Amino acid sequence: MEKFTVIQGGGEKRDLHQTMLALGQNARAAARRLALAPQQRKNTALIVAAGLLRTSTRDLIDANARDMEAAAKAGASKANLDRLMLNEERVESMAKGLEKIAALPDPVGKVLATYERPNGLKIERVATPLGVIGVIYESRPNVTADAGALCLKAGNAAILRGGSDSFNSSAMIHACLAEGLKTAGLPEAAISRVPTRDRAAVGEMLKGLDGNIDVIVPRGGKSLVARVQEEARVPVFAHLEGVVHVYVEAAADLEKAKAIVMNSKMRRTGVCGAAETLLVDRAVEKTHLAPLVKMLLDAGCEVRGDANAGGVDTRVKRANEEDWRTEYLDAIISVKVVSGLEEAIDHIESYGSHHTDCIITENARAAERFLAEVDSAIVVHNASTQFADGGEFGFGGEIGIATGRMHARGPVGLEQLCSFNYRVHGTGQTRK
Amino acid sequence: MEKFTVIQGGGEKRDLHQTMLALGQNARAAARRLALAPQQRKNTALIVAAGLLRTSTRDLIDANARDMEAAAKAGASKANLDRLMLNEERVESMAKGLEKIAALPDPVGKVLATYERPNGLKIERVATPLGVIGVIYESRPNVTADAGALCLKAGNAAILRGGSDSFNSSAMIHACLAEGLKTAGLPEAAISRVPTRDRAAVGEMLKGLDGNIDVIVPRGGKSLVARVQEEARVPVFAHLEGVVHVYVEAAADLEKAKAIVMNSKMRRTGVCGAAETLLVDRAVEKTHLAPLVKMLLDAGCEVRGDANAGGVDTRVKRANEEDWRTEYLDAIISVKVVSGLEEAIDHIESYGSHHTDCIITENARAAERFLAEVDSAIVVHNASTQFADGGEFGFGGEIGIATGRMHARGPVGLEQLCSFNYRVHGTGQTRK
Repeated sequence: MEKFTVIQGGGEKRDLHQTMLALGQNARAAARRLALAPQQRKNTALIVAAGLLRTSTRDLIDANARDMEAAAKAGASKANLDRLMLNEERVESMAKGLEKIAALPDPVGKVLATYERPNGLKIERVATPLGVIGVIYESRPNVTADAGALCLKAGNAAILRGGSDSFNSSAMIHACLAEGLKTAGLPEAAISRVPTRDRAAVGEMLKGLDGNIDVIVPRGGKSLVARVQEEARVPVFAHLEGVVHVYVEAAADLEKAKAIVMNSKMRRTGVCGAAETLLVDRAVEKTHLAPLVKMLLDAGCEVRGDANAGGVDTRVKRANEEDWRTEYLDAIISVKVVSGLEEAIDHIESYGSHHTDCIITENARAAERFLAEVDSAIVVHNASTQFADGGEFGFGGEIGIATGRMHARGPVGLEQLCSFNYRVHGTGQTRK
Repeated sequence: MEKFTVIQGGGEKRDLHQTMLALGQNARAAARRLALAPQQRKNTALIVAAGLLRTSTRDLIDANARDMEAAAKAGASKANLDRLMLNEERVESMAKGLEKIAALPDPVGKVLATYERPNGLKIERVATPLGVIGVIYESRPNVTADAGALCLKAGNAAILRGGSDSFNSSAMIHACLAEGLKTAGLPEAAISRVPTRDRAAVGEMLKGLDGNIDVIVPRGGKSLVARVQEEARVPVFAHLEGVVHVYVEAAADLEKAKAIVMNSKMRRTGVCGAAETLLVDRAVEKTHLAPLVKMLLDAGCEVRGDANAGGVDTRVKRANEEDWRTEYLDAIISVKVVSGLEEAIDHIESYGSHHTDCIITENARAAERFLAEVDSAIVVHNASTQFADGGEFGFGGEIGIATGRMHARGPVGLEQLCSFNYRVHGTGQTRK
């Protein structure tokens, strides 16, 4: 195994810059080797790491306790502490996650398309790794395992920069991954971790570490994603927010609508695929609006409605212009009556975030138009918006959901963590 | 048809900024309509435009004559004048090009992948347009027709900024395209043209026109591409240069090698897929090196060799370090003897530009290793590197060749001018 530049933590700015550059260079060197690594080695690394996570459960929980204590002292919210927390169940879930990724087919080397030419040339488009992926995340320590494993499986080197509050937890998870790589004979820099809490490290990553990061994936809240999208000098796979709509069309079945609206809004309110706005067609205002609004109110959801929705129940608050643009990530929903498909689509295009939007209808033509005309990464007919998830799509996992239009859009799974090239097989052909 | 902001030329900076922003906004509005346009309309626009090009041949050649005269006065090189020149044959070739693009299958709406889930959800990944594509090019006026047509066919709006020397020629070609769009009932802003010679317009485009350009495609020489890659704040589909290698491996057939090397270097020396460096395996140095070098010299190609190549003919000049990195785009080639596959790959990875590289060998395993390990957009076994072209790949055309790793790599055809989204078809599914 080649020698990698020794990485040292350093308090000074210049030290940090050098540390980060060395991290990038080592990751690039590792990526070159990983691109050629047989899948067996990558899988071995993941399976060994899963075993180590299990045998280190006690140590992981101890390290996590130090993080939890510091976070509590610093006044972290209950939600934040819950995201940070590791217990036996969560460690087991991380280990299982690694094994699941190991069991997925290797995306690298997959023939994506073939072109047989009249002159006998056989051209193949073949999946190749993207290169080096920078992952910037917040308190959830499990992202260290999930993101590192997905990047590795797709033949990429990963540079992980977790939140400073999960520093000890992530360090220990990372140590298990590094040991797995070592056992499999792969460079440890294949999954590297920023060895400092210094926030300036994020800025360095966003500049691309001298061409040594090919794409950045931010995992966290809106302020993190906004900063990354604003400052990054390399491509970013991300969504800023999910202002998700459910449109109950004129031909919607009421029972189906109730089940889907309830699940889309209330299954989990803090996920990006949770519904934030309910649009009800004027044609079914009399029959569908009141049952849907009352169902949500009774389930403990705050409803902010237009004048029409306001009329069906005294508990409904009045929505203002800002509500139509708001991702509540909470048990709150905005409700509006629209004159038809056209207005529904206009509303979604005007106020939405191009993440996930849904139509409920038994009219196949209306559904088809909605799916074709709503310009979102994921468009859904007659199912919950909370299926917006790489696992639910059958991708075997995801590193996030993207709303950009280039390369990756929707759930970012192994396939989207790959690039491709063309391999031309000839028998001596020359061009006229 | 909706009204579009009137576009006016303007000498002052502020005017230019406003003109360009309006161009971007109109293009975005047009892109929204184009995304939903049936293929028949797009094809009609192209076929009508082709007819208009033919009936306007005289006017086109007159307009071009004014450009040619001005360019000649300004001291343009012979090569530049040739690129700029339009004659009957070239106009006919543009018209045929439009008809050929019209005849291609519509890439929009193509189902790229399907996922049937155990819960009955049917998920489709469907091709959608990218949005608005900015094309920045130099003297060839035909790019106006080719690039505009490819963007349109893929459902994108195009903003074309041709070289100032082809201003009159491009304006007239663009007028034919605009008339075709009008006849087909499509927004004229679907293919818009920067209506000023002011070079600051390029800077405005590179900033993305306030989010109204999704990708920039530069078509031209290295200095243009370098500027675009350096300054663009939006993704770029491009290659900076093609430092293309042909490696004659130990098991290469000499006759095949001669034909492929000759074609790769000399068919056209000014194209990006032309070979610039010949690597000959030490194992066949005695048998293959002299015939290949002499063949090239006799064909009028300057040879700059290492010490080994220098020994076979007095006409060989000595290569220096800079030669291995140089894209000559001329009848010049650098020649080196390498110790084997490993050194050949190392040389290509160190000095190449990840564009197109070729191995000549009858050893299938060596070929396989070369195709897997050389990290270039196009890797070729036993065929000319001059096949690096979207048309030759069967893409029906290309807007350029990219060496980036994201979204588009290699020839950029209709498929790469598209994005995609996910369409989820349910029957009332909710998530647990």
